Amino acid sequence: MQNFVFHNPTKILFGKNTVPAIGEETIAYGEKVLLVYGTGSIKKNGLYEQIIQSFKGVGAEITEHPGVQSNPLLSHTRKGIQLAKENNCQVVCAAGGGSVIDEAKAICAGATVQHDVWKFFTGKKSVKAPLPLTTVLTLAASGSEMNSGMVITNEETSQKFGFANKLLHPKTSILDPAVTCSVPADYTAYGAVDAVAHVLEFYFTTVDPCTPVQDRLMEGLVINAMESCNRVLKKLDDYQARADLMWTATLALNGLTGAGLGKVGFPMHMIEHSLSAFYNVPHGAGLSAVIPGWMRHYAQLNSKRFAQFAERVFDIREGSEEERASRGVEALSAWFTKVNSPTTLTTLEIPKDDIPRIAENALALANVWRMADYDKDKIETILGNCL
Amino acid sequence: MQNFVFHNPTKILFGKNTVPAIGEETIAYGEKVLLVYGTGSIKKNGLYEQIIQSFKGVGAEITEHPGVQSNPLLSHTRKGIQLAKENNCQVVCAAGGGSVIDEAKAICAGATVQHDVWKFFTGKKSVKAPLPLTTVLTLAASGSEMNSGMVITNEETSQKFGFANKLLHPKTSILDPAVTCSVPADYTAYGAVDAVAHVLEFYFTTVDPCTPVQDRLMEGLVINAMESCNRVLKKLDDYQARADLMWTATLALNGLTGAGLGKVGFPMHMIEHSLSAFYNVPHGAGLSAVIPGWMRHYAQLNSKRFAQFAERVFDIREGSEEERASRGVEALSAWFTKVNSPTTLTTLEIPKDDIPRIAENALALANVWRMADYDKDKIETILGNCL
Repeated sequence: MQNFVFHNPTKILFGKNTVPAIGEETIAYGEKVLLVYGTGSIKKNGLYEQIIQSFKGVGAEITEHPGVQSNPLLSHTRKGIQLAKENNCQVVCAAGGGSVIDEAKAICAGATVQHDVWKFFTGKKSVKAPLPLTTVLTLAASGSEMNSGMVITNEETSQKFGFANKLLHPKTSILDPAVTCSVPADYTAYGAVDAVAHVLEFYFTTVDPCTPVQDRLMEGLVINAMESCNRVLKKLDDYQARADLMWTATLALNGLTGAGLGKVGFPMHMIEHSLSAFYNVPHGAGLSAVIPGWMRHYAQLNSKRFAQFAERVFDIREGSEEERASRGVEALSAWFTKVNSPTTLTTLEIPKDDIPRIAENALALANVWRMADYDKDKIETILGNCL
Repeated sequence: MQNFVFHNPTKILFGKNTVPAIGEETIAYGEKVLLVYGTGSIKKNGLYEQIIQSFKGVGAEITEHPGVQSNPLLSHTRKGIQLAKENNCQVVCAAGGGSVIDEAKAICAGATVQHDVWKFFTGKKSVKAPLPLTTVLTLAASGSEMNSGMVITNEETSQKFGFANKLLHPKTSILDPAVTCSVPADYTAYGAVDAVAHVLEFYFTTVDPCTPVQDRLMEGLVINAMESCNRVLKKLDDYQARADLMWTATLALNGLTGAGLGKVGFPMHMIEHSLSAFYNVPHGAGLSAVIPGWMRHYAQLNSKRFAQFAERVFDIREGSEEERASRGVEALSAWFTKVNSPTTLTTLEIPKDDIPRIAENALALANVWRMADYDKDKIETILGNCL
């Protein structure tokens, strides 16, 4: 185990009928609130009305910043910052999934400085005193509700960049699984795939040979993401299954899984970002198309680790270490297929001939993320495994 | 899963050479520090000197409160509170195991009020604005370094009471596994038993039939406590094994395992407290003598849960559900024996005839802890299983 700092001060209110607490949790930081949300789903399922009622009950003064889209945009983030400044907002409340929460974090960071918010993303400025943030989560997927990171797309430069700062942990996040019961089957599965991916990125990129505490935690989360997703897909309004999936996704990227692993990377996300960028593929769908190919590549290089994964997650105990490693990858791929998340580029109708340009785009991100062990050839090889 | 609030703001600095950070972490809350420690082991292993040097380096003004004993006493706690008040201490730093940290928490609570600290333990007063606390942990066992609870013994009334308050989470806890390398084999094992017990109390007392996320987390922690303890006992200064055991013990009682379980209890601790009180048995040794007997009783009543434990923790897959449940209990008992932690009252030289008076003493605590499902007969039956 490597040295680590673990500090996650986010307060989680989890369960039924927790949404009405958002007003009180938020005005603890000020009565002038910027309410950030997406393109309308919270108005359809009644969540918007619940939140507004809660804020009215505590006398909050709301400025609304709707319209956050998937892969949130810098231009829209800047508008939110301007709104927060003009209205002297003291606190930001995000109601939505990972995209909404990510944009809200960037607004929190940008609202208290004079320079452009993008400078945080390019590393030219660091966050000192952001606005506090509260959230009401609507999708089990990104983990943004209990971590300090965010990803924003700069549409002027075609850069999808991210950063994290400990001051950007939400103060309070409200997780009511019932809120997620209206998420359709496909996006539920993509969310579960995202949670699985977050765990696997760390699990397979740690270079520490001995991380048993984290290993059991991560293996349990992968099992729970799959099992709870299976249960939800049988009955979309199964509250308990939604609850298990929601809490699993939160724990999958709240800092705990990586504690002690040392330097880890996001290679599968790195490659997937290019699929999202070129083909507008949903993030989870892109991930499930990349993960098996990436794993096939590395299972050969690190069969011990992959065999452990196969045994503990899929109870695969027969065969040589190499065989078990390989069977674990295919078992995961079979689960993606079971939940109708694509497992090949072909399924996504991405032609083989596009691989070089995808690899080139991905390599640019690998450079930004300082992943020196990736070159164009390697990414092409991995993408070749994804056909 | 039941509704829950999870909020653990303690910052953990984990790893080699982290102790020198204690000065800076502590004076962030004030320069006048009350340093609380035990009966001298930190002076023998060099930790005391390291801590003093760190505090000198940041210009802290130290008041020392040494002499905390196992099962910390109210009278000694009161002395610490008086010292803190007389010296206008702004922050408390605990250097030790669970007993030292527990007493330091009570001092933090008592130092800012005029009434006696015991009123917090009897529920007559609640904590409002305690002094902040930092810790340097020296024993993997209690979890006090990352939770808000404490247990203090009132020697005037022979009451060993505990309470928790969210304001008493340590601000920062420093966990350097190397510090624990001087802990002898017996107390290392007792610490691991304590960590296992903390997990099992919740695992087997939840009445929620569906807690899969927490189940995998708890099962993993039990496996890790046992495996890392085994490794330490083979080589007491195995840093990696010490690290795994230390982090496991912290996670075993930091609020995460119980999130979503609803009301849980501490019945094994309840019974063990009487053994400690009458026979001065080390806490972990008393626990390992009580746990198998308690589990034998409940394995018959809830064989499904115990069979899951047997399968996932000990890979026991053969036999009927009842047989697997029972074999799991005996496998855990065998592990206690393997690490030389006693598994019967007989080993502790506690005569069978004492069972009624032990049960009577334990019942008093059961009443304080509002465990209405325990009467004297049931406790006697369980103790009868422990012979």
